[in-house]
Amino acid sequence: MKTQVAIVGAGPAGLMLGHLLRVEGIEAVIVERASPDYVLGRIRAGVLERTTTDLMDRLGLGARMHAEGLPHDGFHLADGERLIRIDIAALTGRQVMVYGQTEVTRDLMEAAPERGLEIIYDAADVALHDVDGDAPYITYSKNGATHRIDAQFLCGCDGFHGPSRKAMPASVARHYEKVYPFGWLGILADVPPCNHELIYANHERGFALASMRSATRSRYYVQVALDEKVEDWSDDRLWDELAIRLGPEAAAHITRGPALEKSIAPLRSFVFEPMRHGRLMLAGDSAHIVPPTGAKGLNLAMSDVHYLSQSLIAYLKRHDSDAVAGYSDKALARVWKSERFSWQLTKLMHRFPDSDAFDRRMQVADLDYIASSVAAQTTIAENYVGLPL
Amino acid sequence: MKTQVAIVGAGPAGLMLGHLLRVEGIEAVIVERASPDYVLGRIRAGVLERTTTDLMDRLGLGARMHAEGLPHDGFHLADGERLIRIDIAALTGRQVMVYGQTEVTRDLMEAAPERGLEIIYDAADVALHDVDGDAPYITYSKNGATHRIDAQFLCGCDGFHGPSRKAMPASVARHYEKVYPFGWLGILADVPPCNHELIYANHERGFALASMRSATRSRYYVQVALDEKVEDWSDDRLWDELAIRLGPEAAAHITRGPALEKSIAPLRSFVFEPMRHGRLMLAGDSAHIVPPTGAKGLNLAMSDVHYLSQSLIAYLKRHDSDAVAGYSDKALARVWKSERFSWQLTKLMHRFPDSDAFDRRMQVADLDYIASSVAAQTTIAENYVGLPL
Repeated sequence: MKTQVAIVGAGPAGLMLGHLLRVEGIEAVIVERASPDYVLGRIRAGVLERTTTDLMDRLGLGARMHAEGLPHDGFHLADGERLIRIDIAALTGRQVMVYGQTEVTRDLMEAAPERGLEIIYDAADVALHDVDGDAPYITYSKNGATHRIDAQFLCGCDGFHGPSRKAMPASVARHYEKVYPFGWLGILADVPPCNHELIYANHERGFALASMRSATRSRYYVQVALDEKVEDWSDDRLWDELAIRLGPEAAAHITRGPALEKSIAPLRSFVFEPMRHGRLMLAGDSAHIVPPTGAKGLNLAMSDVHYLSQSLIAYLKRHDSDAVAGYSDKALARVWKSERFSWQLTKLMHRFPDSDAFDRRMQVADLDYIASSVAAQTTIAENYVGLPL
Repeated sequence: MKTQVAIVGAGPAGLMLGHLLRVEGIEAVIVERASPDYVLGRIRAGVLERTTTDLMDRLGLGARMHAEGLPHDGFHLADGERLIRIDIAALTGRQVMVYGQTEVTRDLMEAAPERGLEIIYDAADVALHDVDGDAPYITYSKNGATHRIDAQFLCGCDGFHGPSRKAMPASVARHYEKVYPFGWLGILADVPPCNHELIYANHERGFALASMRSATRSRYYVQVALDEKVEDWSDDRLWDELAIRLGPEAAAHITRGPALEKSIAPLRSFVFEPMRHGRLMLAGDSAHIVPPTGAKGLNLAMSDVHYLSQSLIAYLKRHDSDAVAGYSDKALARVWKSERFSWQLTKLMHRFPDSDAFDRRMQVADLDYIASSVAAQTTIAENYVGLPL
């Protein structure tokens, strides 16, 4: 098979990229290791920046998001005693949208056939070839046969563990990483959320987050040590812990319910540079990971594919090779800003096992300062709604 | 001797406290270990917040400061490539005043006799007694005799190494400390400054600061390892290093000259709690130390003595014991905010020997974000000019 752009990965980044290219009449094919059901079964983020909702709207695919999503004007930082509200609407003039990554993926997936965006699911052994040359291609196996897609560009939207980043030559690779000394234990339950906005809590027993996917589906997290096991956390124990960490005001409104999903995820900051080499471009988790504090992961993938689609369109329609050459720097400038915000909010809101009494007082002083300063609240709000593209 | 308030230490904090009490007709005596010349010979900070200049004005002692001081509308953060200007006047409506601590001390010292503020210099072996009871007193020796001052309150303005903090009972003491893995090598020279505003530089060879005391007296610093010795830094070597770290734009305007003073100071964050116990109150460096980045030390001492004078006046004139009881919490709220700012600016602008590539990129991302965000610049500016009392 021959196409203009071959995309590895049919998560939200790959799907969005495919749509953005198709709208401009560019041929694109996506190969995905998993099945559609598996892709939709992944429980991920749920807070969309305006930059992300704008992309959905630009594609004309925002109808269900606007009907079912929950626009939020703010969120809270809790410190065991008080709620500090970050009024993002008043501070930035923008909102964020609570709408699950699963729903974004579904909307993009369902619109693919009518837009001529081909997605090949269940593609095993995906491999990228000749990324340095002018004729790169992808191979994969399906139903016992090996297939090949020749393309002008290969785009890696295949997440942290996918093959695309590994196809970058070691001679050009630089990576930056921070692994945090804790994880997040998450629970998804079909119960109404305890607050109509998110609450990020820094409690002496550790971080907790009250979030939601809809008015009837809640998503909660607690910080746990890296050696904790999901099996040790019964639903009751987890609800008890959430009630303590989120504080009495939130606890009074927690509705308990059985876990639809419960799992522990590690926290990591990771950036791979460059995001382009030859005819291979990376976007989203294949190039960088943020800790989930602040909900930047999905949104950062979306800004990557925005820049990436612009670069490819400029090259494929106007032979502008500078646009392709400039993609990595352009995307990375925003990546590092989001990495900074996610790292800073993670440091502010978690309890670190190796922190001393002075470090702890600096967290308290940071929260006191944020509570008292419009400028400090604005720095958080403007990052939370998404810095300008 | 009997007085209402006995103050230990005739640095700027003790002198300012004495004046603020005398203006309200309260009796105050200061005992100082050193001689007047020694006190005036200490080279210290030189950037005054509006809160500090307001105190000088309120005492009617601001005339020379306004005539000789340099009001500054902003300062710069440099990162080896660019200057990021923090326009404090535009962002906060306030200025800071460059006027050496030595000059503040001189103005307060010279006005003492006419205001009936007695200062006993060369007082050796100063000791504080019975701080828990209703009749505390100070003893000291001078000219071979032992003297005693009975007072209603003892105020420790005697710096980090003075006896006052040590007179706090261990049973109530809490302390918080961070020692930084580097020091500042400073040079004072009678040459015009390289820029009319301060430049804080984060260079790959380490932090540098271009500062001044007047239009003809410059003060520069470079970050050095803790095992460096002043003897290894000739004037030429230091000027060469400054030219590199401050960047070509600043270097082109550096005027070199012989060092009037050259010394290495360690950097430390330190807070002692509580700042009052019984009839003993602490203010300034006796209770807390900030790293010099951001010039908060002197200004924090001044806000302490502002709160302290208000508490003592309320008690001694209106028998308001709540005011005395509340002093420590009130002062500490501002202390921790200044500690936070000094710690954060120190972390932002220095090279840490144990930082990894990710940490370094977070510094770069922080500086990039500050360069691009009015809100981020405002957080720095509002702390730099001094948070509200």
